[in-house]
Amino acid sequence: MNRSRAVFYHAGCPVCVEAEQKVAQAVDPLKYDVEIVHLGKAKSRIAEAEASGVKSVPALVLDGVPFHINFGAGIEALK
Amino acid sequence: MNRSRAVFYHAGCPVCVEAEQKVAQAVDPLKYDVEIVHLGKAKSRIAEAEASGVKSVPALVLDGVPFHINFGAGIEALK
Repeated sequence: MNRSRAVFYHAGCPVCVEAEQKVAQAVDPLKYDVEIVHLGKAKSRIAEAEASGVKSVPALVLDGVPFHINFGAGIEALK
Repeated sequence: MNRSRAVFYHAGCPVCVEAEQKVAQAVDPLKYDVEIVHLGKAKSRIAEAEASGVKSVPALVLDGVPFHINFGAGIEALK
C-alpha cells in the first residue's frame, strides 16, 4: 500500500503532550505513515520542519502541508 | 465496533476548506465516527461546538476534546 507521510512535531510540553498525541494517534494508519518528532530532543529536525512551513508546535504535517494545532492547556491541569 | 466521536467544525472558507478537510479525512475511520459540520450553514450546532470548548474554526473535536487548527492560507492561493 502506498501511504502518505504524516509528521507530528511537538516540543514535549508535559501538560499538552497526551492530548496532542491524541491527534497523531487519530490519523488513519492505512492512509498515513505517521512519525512523531520531539523537536526539543531532535533539534536536527527543526530545519526540516521549517521547510515544511511549520511556524509553531504542535503541528501536524500531512503530505507536506502544515497544520498548526492549538490545544490550550486547561488551568485545571496546572493546579 | 465501538468508535469514538470526531467532529470537524469549519466555516466554509473557500481558500482553506480543501486543506482543512484533509485533516478530517486523515482521521482513522476505524477509531472515529467522523462528522463534518459547516457552522456557517448549521448555526443550530454553534452552541454544541461552544459546549465542546471550540473557540475558533476550523476545529477538530476528538472524544469531546477540542483542537483548534490554524492552516493559514498561502498568499499564492489568493493570486
